[in-house]
Amino acid sequence: METIKEGDLVLIRFKDRRYLKRVESDKNFSYKGGVLHYKDLVGKPFGITVGELQIFKPTLEEIILYGIRRETQIVYPKDTFYAAHKLDLREGKKVLEFGTGSGATALVFSSAVGPSGKVYTFEREERIYRVAKKNLERFAPYDNVVLFNEPFSPERVGEVEFDAAFVDVREPWPFVEAVWSVLKPSAPVGFLLPTANQVQELLRHLRPFFGDVEVVEILTRPYKPNPDRFRPEDQMVAHTAYLLFAKKLSK
Amino acid sequence: METIKEGDLVLIRFKDRRYLKRVESDKNFSYKGGVLHYKDLVGKPFGITVGELQIFKPTLEEIILYGIRRETQIVYPKDTFYAAHKLDLREGKKVLEFGTGSGATALVFSSAVGPSGKVYTFEREERIYRVAKKNLERFAPYDNVVLFNEPFSPERVGEVEFDAAFVDVREPWPFVEAVWSVLKPSAPVGFLLPTANQVQELLRHLRPFFGDVEVVEILTRPYKPNPDRFRPEDQMVAHTAYLLFAKKLSK
Amino acid sequence: METIKEGDLVLIRFKDRRYLKRVESDKNFSYKGGVLHYKDLVGKPFGITVGELQIFKPTLEEIILYGIRRETQIVYPKDTFYAAHKLDLREGKKVLEFGTGSGATALVFSSAVGPSGKVYTFEREERIYRVAKKNLERFAPYDNVVLFNEPFSPERVGEVEFDAAFVDVREPWPFVEAVWSVLKPSAPVGFLLPTANQVQELLRHLRPFFGDVEVVEILTRPYKPNPDRFRPEDQMVAHTAYLLFAKKLSK
Amino acid sequence: METIKEGDLVLIRFKDRRYLKRVESDKNFSYKGGVLHYKDLVGKPFGITVGELQIFKPTLEEIILYGIRRETQIVYPKDTFYAAHKLDLREGKKVLEFGTGSGATALVFSSAVGPSGKVYTFEREERIYRVAKKNLERFAPYDNVVLFNEPFSPERVGEVEFDAAFVDVREPWPFVEAVWSVLKPSAPVGFLLPTANQVQELLRHLRPFFGDVEVVEILTRPYKPNPDRFRPEDQMVAHTAYLLFAKKLSK
Repeated sequence: METIKEGDLVLIRFKDRRYLKRVESDKNFSYKGGVLHYKDLVGKPFGITVGELQIFKPTLEEIILYGIRRETQIVYPKDTFYAAHKLDLREGKKVLEFGTGSGATALVFSSAVGPSGKVYTFEREERIYRVAKKNLERFAPYDNVVLFNEPFSPERVGEVEFDAAFVDVREPWPFVEAVWSVLKPSAPVGFLLPTANQVQELLRHLRPFFGDVEVVEILTRPYKPNPDRFRPEDQMVAHTAYLLFAKKLSK
Repeated sequence: METIKEGDLVLIRFKDRRYLKRVESDKNFSYKGGVLHYKDLVGKPFGITVGELQIFKPTLEEIILYGIRRETQIVYPKDTFYAAHKLDLREGKKVLEFGTGSGATALVFSSAVGPSGKVYTFEREERIYRVAKKNLERFAPYDNVVLFNEPFSPERVGEVEFDAAFVDVREPWPFVEAVWSVLKPSAPVGFLLPTANQVQELLRHLRPFFGDVEVVEILTRPYKPNPDRFRPEDQMVAHTAYLLFAKKLSK
Repeated sequence: METIKEGDLVLIRFKDRRYLKRVESDKNFSYKGGVLHYKDLVGKPFGITVGELQIFKPTLEEIILYGIRRETQIVYPKDTFYAAHKLDLREGKKVLEFGTGSGATALVFSSAVGPSGKVYTFEREERIYRVAKKNLERFAPYDNVVLFNEPFSPERVGEVEFDAAFVDVREPWPFVEAVWSVLKPSAPVGFLLPTANQVQELLRHLRPFFGDVEVVEILTRPYKPNPDRFRPEDQMVAHTAYLLFAKKLSK
Repeated sequence: METIKEGDLVLIRFKDRRYLKRVESDKNFSYKGGVLHYKDLVGKPFGITVGELQIFKPTLEEIILYGIRRETQIVYPKDTFYAAHKLDLREGKKVLEFGTGSGATALVFSSAVGPSGKVYTFEREERIYRVAKKNLERFAPYDNVVLFNEPFSPERVGEVEFDAAFVDVREPWPFVEAVWSVLKPSAPVGFLLPTANQVQELLRHLRPFFGDVEVVEILTRPYKPNPDRFRPEDQMVAHTAYLLFAKKLSK
């Protein structure tokens, strides 16, 4: 049975909160009501209860929500998970992404395309690129991400024909034809757009390059898990971004 | 460049509608305004426009929405895609599922765990099992699904320790301990539950087997992709199911 | 006790459906499974059950949803009810409205301002004006609505200073200053706008006339009233219009 | 033209915030960046701009949101406004309410039924009753509210036959027959219920007293009023309560 080892990531659940930590034998986790010595976890199974704490093996979603450093606005897993499927990512696929931001989307795509797939991702701002680099080094499940510190340009990807692309930059419309040029026929593309204005502007630039356009918002409505007082949480995330998906048209 | 071949699946977009068809040279696609002879597609690139039609390579989501046969209520990709990520599925993972229903969830999981992963799925009703079998034979991206025509029981999966489980049956609570028994420590489990009553009942049975419980609904809000009259669609799917996720506790 | 009289409006509930009808002794209501002779209702109390039917006294909402004739897209009571309160309508207030459409909003406002209040409403299209006229004659709770068959112009309302205004026309921005000119200081104004483009355009024209701007959508999520299978309805109205509210600035 | 007088309520808008205050000549409003002397407002029109501040006449909604004291959880105007219309309240109607809570619902109903209507409202907890009393004395638009410090009982309302009723208590089901007994035939009743469990339990007790049952949630989705970056707010109120409406059945 797999047990907790020195250096493992753990998700600590304490009351309603979650913490992502690394097991380092000379360090502790302090919480209201006690201290956990990480060395006491080594050799124990994941899923154990230690006093008021529960110790789990983190999922990729939890790594993204509680582990990565951010220099940019959070990109929610709900959106990138949905994108991964709309883009039909799976084992072995090659996907283009820009801008990288904190690298959260690249992490999701890295996981989705697996060890034989490839994620090319471009981030022009050096400060953000450095954060993404660190997050990808720490958390990427596979060594399948190629990170560029420059704006996306078709020249830089050489002969690669991509199975899919995902674009998260403020003004994506100047890139429509360039993205089109590096995609396989019929390949899906996704765009993450916080404002209606961006969606409107992008819709004006998609033809004649992309068809089968869909625009959608993903809302996750969380509930209090109390069987005797079952009800939605009081507050929810009301908006992160509009997602636009389309497919490459052949000329 | 990949071109359309005899026997390929194609997604035909005509006005606001989508059709999933197989290219069979002796057959036609009739639509209001014309006829498409499939043989005329052979050798052409995906993504081409033929008159009022656009011909794309279908994604897994489109196969599920427009291709599979159903004997049960539709399970929406929005829910199973979300589940695939909450369950942290990726290349090589072993996932347990029941009830299979039409096989839509198994298709999503098959894609997510890739050729080196495994999906064990149980469907007790023979009529539904037969539909699922046919759908999986036609559409599964990999030969990694093991389908049982019986209720789930731990004995049948032998020594397999699962990385994750997903349960979509009317009364899942009698199975809580059995599911627990075949999972690895800390492994995530998901349940799909159409009614609040089911959530309430299940919540009463999770302890002491599962912790870190989340209940959530996924809502997708589609927009009309018109840049000059941008607005949500008039109608939306308001509810498919509550999703409950938890993680295995070690004793 | 009030009983049903010849000429009364009744709401007939049959299974999951509702019908708004007028009691006319020589007429019948035919439904799958039987016939109701209206004359049999006369003298009976509202709220009675007749076989599979239940006979209620209709509310204003039900009159609007099931009774009025429409030449234009439906304006949902959820939106106009909300507007009535954001506009702070109550007994004795004077409210301006245009375009009238089917008159549904005027009915809600007529009810809200009561017998001592006043609703001025303008509809430029004669065909629609005629429908509104008929609906108001049949259903307005008070004789407090003044209906004009012309575009709104401040000249036509003379010396009236309005407590509030509500605008439901495709292009409201040319009317901003005119509406401003007939309102009392600080008076609230509301706009009903189906598309994001309209909201964006209107927002550009509100200053320096109106401040304290709010834009909101009202969503009603209906549930199946089954205690053993409690859950939201499968489908819901996803969008009717954006509502924009603001208040008159004094110069 | 109406101008601001000593003792008037004003809504002060400063940046994105709103404050409800009373004009008292010897007092000031301090804000980041300055001080407003209330005496400087007297004689000025509502709607004026004073530096970074805008001074409006508050609507009833704003009085409820920013003015009343609360000892209980907030009851949102979106819910009580909707209820006022589902209950078909207007000039002259008599409505029963319990529990009173902070009095917010009674204020909405007081406004809706006007000077010739009547609101009977019952609050059993003395501490909460005192808060409601103060709020109603300060803010009720008409002298039409009768407030009881006791649980609702039909005996206390004597011969009054109510046009409608609204119930906001934790366990409303024991009161179903009592409420039924004081309503006119076919009269609408509303219930505010935070949890699904309450809705389920109440649904089991409504027959044979009430029919035409509807359960609904009201969601208000606010937008940032920026024409160049139009988008929903990041966060929204996800849940306040389920609303259940029904109509009295005659026996």
